[in-house]
Amino acid sequence: MAHIELPTESPGIRGLFEFRPQTAQPLGELAEVLLRADNSLGRGERELIAAYVSSLNDCDFCASSHSAFAALQLPNGWTVVDGVLHDPASAPIDDKLKALLALAGEVQRGGRAVTPATVATARDAGASDVEIHDVVLIAAAFCMFNRYVDGLGTAAPQDRADYLPMAERIVDSGYLGSR
Amino acid sequence: MAHIELPTESPGIRGLFEFRPQTAQPLGELAEVLLRADNSLGRGERELIAAYVSSLNDCDFCASSHSAFAALQLPNGWTVVDGVLHDPASAPIDDKLKALLALAGEVQRGGRAVTPATVATARDAGASDVEIHDVVLIAAAFCMFNRYVDGLGTAAPQDRADYLPMAERIVDSGYLGSR
Repeated sequence: MAHIELPTESPGIRGLFEFRPQTAQPLGELAEVLLRADNSLGRGERELIAAYVSSLNDCDFCASSHSAFAALQLPNGWTVVDGVLHDPASAPIDDKLKALLALAGEVQRGGRAVTPATVATARDAGASDVEIHDVVLIAAAFCMFNRYVDGLGTAAPQDRADYLPMAERIVDSGYLGSR
Repeated sequence: MAHIELPTESPGIRGLFEFRPQTAQPLGELAEVLLRADNSLGRGERELIAAYVSSLNDCDFCASSHSAFAALQLPNGWTVVDGVLHDPASAPIDDKLKALLALAGEVQRGGRAVTPATVATARDAGASDVEIHDVVLIAAAFCMFNRYVDGLGTAAPQDRADYLPMAERIVDSGYLGSR
């Protein structure tokens, strides 16, 4: 049961957005620009980074939902998602995405955990300054979203299938249209 | 030196906002609604929570800047700020703010670190559901801002006095007007 009285039974962040529309608005805009706006990183790749960080933070709702959002927007979706959540270094992805996931993993541990060597590896694998910036901010943002969702004790559906209708709405309409 | 090439020498998050206006916009709106919009928690109290979480995350730029923003908006500003950063439990603040700082401290450790007992203590001290929600989200948001600022290796001025002009702008014009 959530730590505060929510107006609906919507799971995870959705119930919190309904409780507090004033904060839902900038949070939705942030998710939209980070995960869906035009970018040299694909939408599926950015959702994969979100799912990976959420998994490191043990946030079931965010890990499950963003895994579904990633799977629907990547070739070989679930194979890639499951591989990355198990071990990014051996997952069937290219070296650039591996390096960006390693960077995201350092950000999850803390801002001061990021090393110049990890940034250099990402740059050597072809990542631009904007991509490095955006990956750091995506990882940082999910350290917020994960704490928000679990810090208020919201519910998370258990079955992967329960997240698919939400995933189809996000892929179709985004983080602002789907509310 | 920052991990990416920034267009100016502006310290901390300010250089990142200049580098990437697309993400600066929702981040500024989030700070404005969390820390300055109408709320039963004062602006100084909310800035104090931001400073405390930033201090726990060892983020010099955010801890120094939000300490200054809090000090300028609280009676006995610096005495309260220095007391809270040293030890919230013995600081010269009321029991409700102590309970909300304890809640923020749990969020800093992780969403799953928040206990029903800590939430109950805050509620018993007079905190409303909206206040509990907002404190969890402020603490979570600074786990993002802190990782963003340090994860990209931005610079932080060392002297307390260096943050005062910025503090005066924020107190006067807020997070959207001051950019």
